[in-house]
Amino acid sequence: MLDEQDIIRRLQQATSHIGVTGIGDDAAVIPLNETESYVITKDLLVEDLHFSLAYFDPESLAHKALHVNLSDIAAMGTLPCYVLLGIAIPSLLSEKFLHSFLDHFSRLCQKNNVHLIGGDTTASSGKLIISLTVIGRAVTSQLKFRNRAQPNELIAVAGNMGYAHLGLKALEEGMSDFEAFTSTSLRPMARVKEGLWFGAQSAVSSMIDLSDGLHIDLSRLCTASKVGSEILVNSLIPSSEFLDACIRLHLDPLESMLIGGEDYGLLVTLKADEYESIAHRFEELFGYQLTLIGKTTDTGVVKLMKNNREIPFVYRAFSHFGEL
Amino acid sequence: MLDEQDIIRRLQQATSHIGVTGIGDDAAVIPLNETESYVITKDLLVEDLHFSLAYFDPESLAHKALHVNLSDIAAMGTLPCYVLLGIAIPSLLSEKFLHSFLDHFSRLCQKNNVHLIGGDTTASSGKLIISLTVIGRAVTSQLKFRNRAQPNELIAVAGNMGYAHLGLKALEEGMSDFEAFTSTSLRPMARVKEGLWFGAQSAVSSMIDLSDGLHIDLSRLCTASKVGSEILVNSLIPSSEFLDACIRLHLDPLESMLIGGEDYGLLVTLKADEYESIAHRFEELFGYQLTLIGKTTDTGVVKLMKNNREIPFVYRAFSHFGEL
Repeated sequence: MLDEQDIIRRLQQATSHIGVTGIGDDAAVIPLNETESYVITKDLLVEDLHFSLAYFDPESLAHKALHVNLSDIAAMGTLPCYVLLGIAIPSLLSEKFLHSFLDHFSRLCQKNNVHLIGGDTTASSGKLIISLTVIGRAVTSQLKFRNRAQPNELIAVAGNMGYAHLGLKALEEGMSDFEAFTSTSLRPMARVKEGLWFGAQSAVSSMIDLSDGLHIDLSRLCTASKVGSEILVNSLIPSSEFLDACIRLHLDPLESMLIGGEDYGLLVTLKADEYESIAHRFEELFGYQLTLIGKTTDTGVVKLMKNNREIPFVYRAFSHFGEL
Repeated sequence: MLDEQDIIRRLQQATSHIGVTGIGDDAAVIPLNETESYVITKDLLVEDLHFSLAYFDPESLAHKALHVNLSDIAAMGTLPCYVLLGIAIPSLLSEKFLHSFLDHFSRLCQKNNVHLIGGDTTASSGKLIISLTVIGRAVTSQLKFRNRAQPNELIAVAGNMGYAHLGLKALEEGMSDFEAFTSTSLRPMARVKEGLWFGAQSAVSSMIDLSDGLHIDLSRLCTASKVGSEILVNSLIPSSEFLDACIRLHLDPLESMLIGGEDYGLLVTLKADEYESIAHRFEELFGYQLTLIGKTTDTGVVKLMKNNREIPFVYRAFSHFGEL
């Protein structure tokens, strides 16, 4: 079975001679005018794989479908403008659910200033499928890609890591009182304003959104940029509510922050000597801090470092966290 | 259960106050520059609903997925330029099938001068799903819509009607020697050049592609344009190979031409006094004739007319055809 990266590589190979550069980034770029471009992203959300109707009410599903795509657009430093909605609807889905989903979806589009301009609906022979195409608009010189990181830059993340992972575990186990985490899992917030702002900062060399987890997404950025990286494990400081939730859910905090996906934070690489200024202005503008998590290098892909020594990246049992 | 038209109406209502005009046409339009626009279409193809892996080899599936979308772009009078490919892959699909599909797909994109610029791949918890987004580019003044037909215009079709319907029946029944029909079902040809040419003809007032069959698609055009129409049944003259195939497949020729979908011909409405000139130039350019099938009116939706009398549109048994 091919995985997504194999397929992307195959399509890149098959199309390399026609000068296609879009495949493999969060979104594809097409020309608009001398100074601006459109960027286009599409995502397939499949029932029981990306969402379960056991947890998702229509509003949460509409929210997640839209924000997953807004996040891809944000990760290019772009303003989302238009959306096309595709749905494949299984016969067992209730009309009430579908009405409610469509109403919430169009309301969320308005709230986020994206125009719903078209789409496709069909029956589904199997599960519910949501397929969005979102189009953003950007000043071409401010577009960010995942393949522009240089060695010896700093790596920072805007947003929590691991929250959606904990939320999903709580939902799966039917545990209550995890609202801070389940809300991230059900209704992640794309960091659209932050993405646009990063786009305008020349000190930011590359950007990717955290859809599949810090370790995987940073690996993708490193592979695309042909750089290595070191994550400073001590910089991943769990909040007390996060630690508390990990204990109750029997999850390893560090592992959850490294491998937990679907938080939709933004990871950026940036010039070291401009980090302080960027971090300061970021906090002033957005009211929360960037997390400095490590640096890029010129070898390897992603290493975990603690007290200047590399530590192995293996899935560890919860109790090992304190020993690292 | 809502059908597609209900959903489109609901989304149109929900978004009407933000000035969205795209929903309901073959493709959505976004601005490019003072004289040109991009048009964007997306389609979901669901296994066992739009295609069966019992008949579709990887090449046919790649062909159909691409051409279904090229046809939507053609129906707006637009040149297809870019494509994004989304696939949800069930675990049982063989790697060989997937390889071959991807290779054929990228080759077909090159052949049709569309650049494959991105997409999304995921596992599927159920069936194989193909979701394409295709982007075309057009001179804005040459865009054609389905809602611009006027009463007392002529209605013409470029392409066969009912061929894919016969082809599917032959495939389903495992009957051989229906190549002219099965090839339309498996590898329909989007009429891209014809669509572009119609776009440039000011005499053509509206256009739609025949994806769901003449009766349904003409009804859509009439509803969108707030006109009625009359199909002259005597103008739907089946070819001798079509008649022969209908006999062998126990299908009604007229019914097959009226309700058979997935031929991906183009239906246009046009000014009566320019029809002769358009039809003549069309045949010179494309080497086949337009079929004049009727006219638009100012009342009702689609009526079937024979010898100046309306005849009922009901699904009829094969033997009734001769009695109309």
